[in-house]
Amino acid sequence: MRVLLVGEAAEHEADLRRTLDPSVETVALPADAATTDTHDDAIDVDDVVVSLRLRRNGAPLPPFRLLHVPGAGLDGIDLDALDPRTCVANVFEHEIPIAEFVLARLLEWEIRAADMQAAFTPGTWAERYRHRVEHGELHGRSLAVVGYGRIGRAIATRAAAFGMRVTAVDDRAAGHDFAQVVPTSRLRDVAAGADRLVVACPLTEQTRGMVDASLLDAMPSDAVLVNISRAETVDEQDLWDALRHNRIGGAILDVWYRYPTAADPDPAPAAHPFWELPNAWCTPHSSAWTRSLARRRYAVIADNIERLASGRPLRNTVRNGVTTGSKRSTQ
Amino acid sequence: MRVLLVGEAAEHEADLRRTLDPSVETVALPADAATTDTHDDAIDVDDVVVSLRLRRNGAPLPPFRLLHVPGAGLDGIDLDALDPRTCVANVFEHEIPIAEFVLARLLEWEIRAADMQAAFTPGTWAERYRHRVEHGELHGRSLAVVGYGRIGRAIATRAAAFGMRVTAVDDRAAGHDFAQVVPTSRLRDVAAGADRLVVACPLTEQTRGMVDASLLDAMPSDAVLVNISRAETVDEQDLWDALRHNRIGGAILDVWYRYPTAADPDPAPAAHPFWELPNAWCTPHSSAWTRSLARRRYAVIADNIERLASGRPLRNTVRNGVTTGSKRSTQ
Repeated sequence: MRVLLVGEAAEHEADLRRTLDPSVETVALPADAATTDTHDDAIDVDDVVVSLRLRRNGAPLPPFRLLHVPGAGLDGIDLDALDPRTCVANVFEHEIPIAEFVLARLLEWEIRAADMQAAFTPGTWAERYRHRVEHGELHGRSLAVVGYGRIGRAIATRAAAFGMRVTAVDDRAAGHDFAQVVPTSRLRDVAAGADRLVVACPLTEQTRGMVDASLLDAMPSDAVLVNISRAETVDEQDLWDALRHNRIGGAILDVWYRYPTAADPDPAPAAHPFWELPNAWCTPHSSAWTRSLARRRYAVIADNIERLASGRPLRNTVRNGVTTGSKRSTQ
Repeated sequence: MRVLLVGEAAEHEADLRRTLDPSVETVALPADAATTDTHDDAIDVDDVVVSLRLRRNGAPLPPFRLLHVPGAGLDGIDLDALDPRTCVANVFEHEIPIAEFVLARLLEWEIRAADMQAAFTPGTWAERYRHRVEHGELHGRSLAVVGYGRIGRAIATRAAAFGMRVTAVDDRAAGHDFAQVVPTSRLRDVAAGADRLVVACPLTEQTRGMVDASLLDAMPSDAVLVNISRAETVDEQDLWDALRHNRIGGAILDVWYRYPTAADPDPAPAAHPFWELPNAWCTPHSSAWTRSLARRRYAVIADNIERLASGRPLRNTVRNGVTTGSKRSTQ
């Protein structure tokens, strides 16, 4: 068994090798091994392939043991092109930095420590000390988390430690120690009582434009909307209107309506200039982007390779491959 | 029983009345009722006095039932001047905003979201998005909390929810779910392994200058010191040298070496200009200064008045008064 690291995965060979059994051979393959058959000869039936993308334009891929995607999303993978024997697993771990980002921004929304720090000078500090402006607290505030998967739960766990009262809105999530879970039919009621509302659900046809004028109007006038999911879950025009007219307290926006593409490398992130509003805190889709993320993800991959080698069940299995030797017709 | 609110406590009559039994009479007394006998005639043996300060320059105070200090510190109270029948209680609650402040600053030290936000423009965001700088995480970092009272525990509870590994340094604290507690004799070892070190102990002869060059040198080169206790627990010159020469990663400083006094209303907060260093984040002793603090404190006081009226044990008792009717000689 060898581990074939394709394209950008090859840049993380050292991250993988930190915890991988040193006897396992790793091989770097260029990025075009993901989308052309140029390197298919290099793939053996016993190999593990680590790649964010894998497709053959409709043609089948050669058989191999495990495709390990080094991210959560499977949109780069043509599952139908994989041999039935190929097992597929993915990794998460981004719920940790995203939850840290959300709590960091929610805390700073209360405290405004950056402003205190910027205003701190030896000539003026005593006057500011005597007339300190009282700031806010997360403690006791209500938090709605819409979408209660890994990211929602990571946010709720931390928010609960601050004494926030957390309600999660999700039709499928099980109960959780840190939040009351209610169905999406109750979204409007929950929003009406939410000091802070975090969108943490995937973008689907059900969630596209889910946060609209009606929902924003239901929220308390000092409520803060946080979007670390996909921009389109929130109606752009309605959010702009709500922020412009201070119908909600503000928005913390890390995700955008337009991203750079080959055809349009420098688009404005939204049709309205949210970044010019004092009550919108805008960042460039950075919440998950940490030094530790890749390291932690490749440690999961190394562990899964170890599990595969020793015949133990894998973590984060997306698809089990038909065991070699079993009849394909049984699958 | 009436409640006499003295000086600045009188400004919080509304905070107290939010939860106080409406039948209880409240009376505002001017600030000089704390330090002169001018208003002693107004104090009845059955009354509750709420005041941050109470002294008679050595002379005894008239008897009353309960002195409720609306803060944690008792340095404004002459306990010896109180009648033996007077019970004394205080309030805390500042551990909540202080812990929020500490976590807010530690998170922002990792993420630098304010910089991302300041740099976010429609013309440059796409380039920044393509070349996002990876930030740090609290997850997995080690945190040392020196002094494991209410504030230290509130910090540890929240830090543990972020997956920090917390060690508390305290000779008297009991064990705790969220931290390993070790004696002060192990401070140097703990500091040597601490990514982040928070000073949360009171200033005593033992803790004055506790964080000195030797301890700072023992810390990892990217460690961050947080002081939300009293400045003098950290040697000023040694901290300046360590920060100037990047022997530690940085410092988050909310407490200072000099405060305004009547004689010197505008002192520089320190002899060295910490606020000019990029690795020192300076704020004007604001960590506890929240809108909710007084409200929460006066809710505790209202609850204690209720408990007193109904003969139940008080919370946060500093000193039990000799019960009316019992012989004073038994105390």
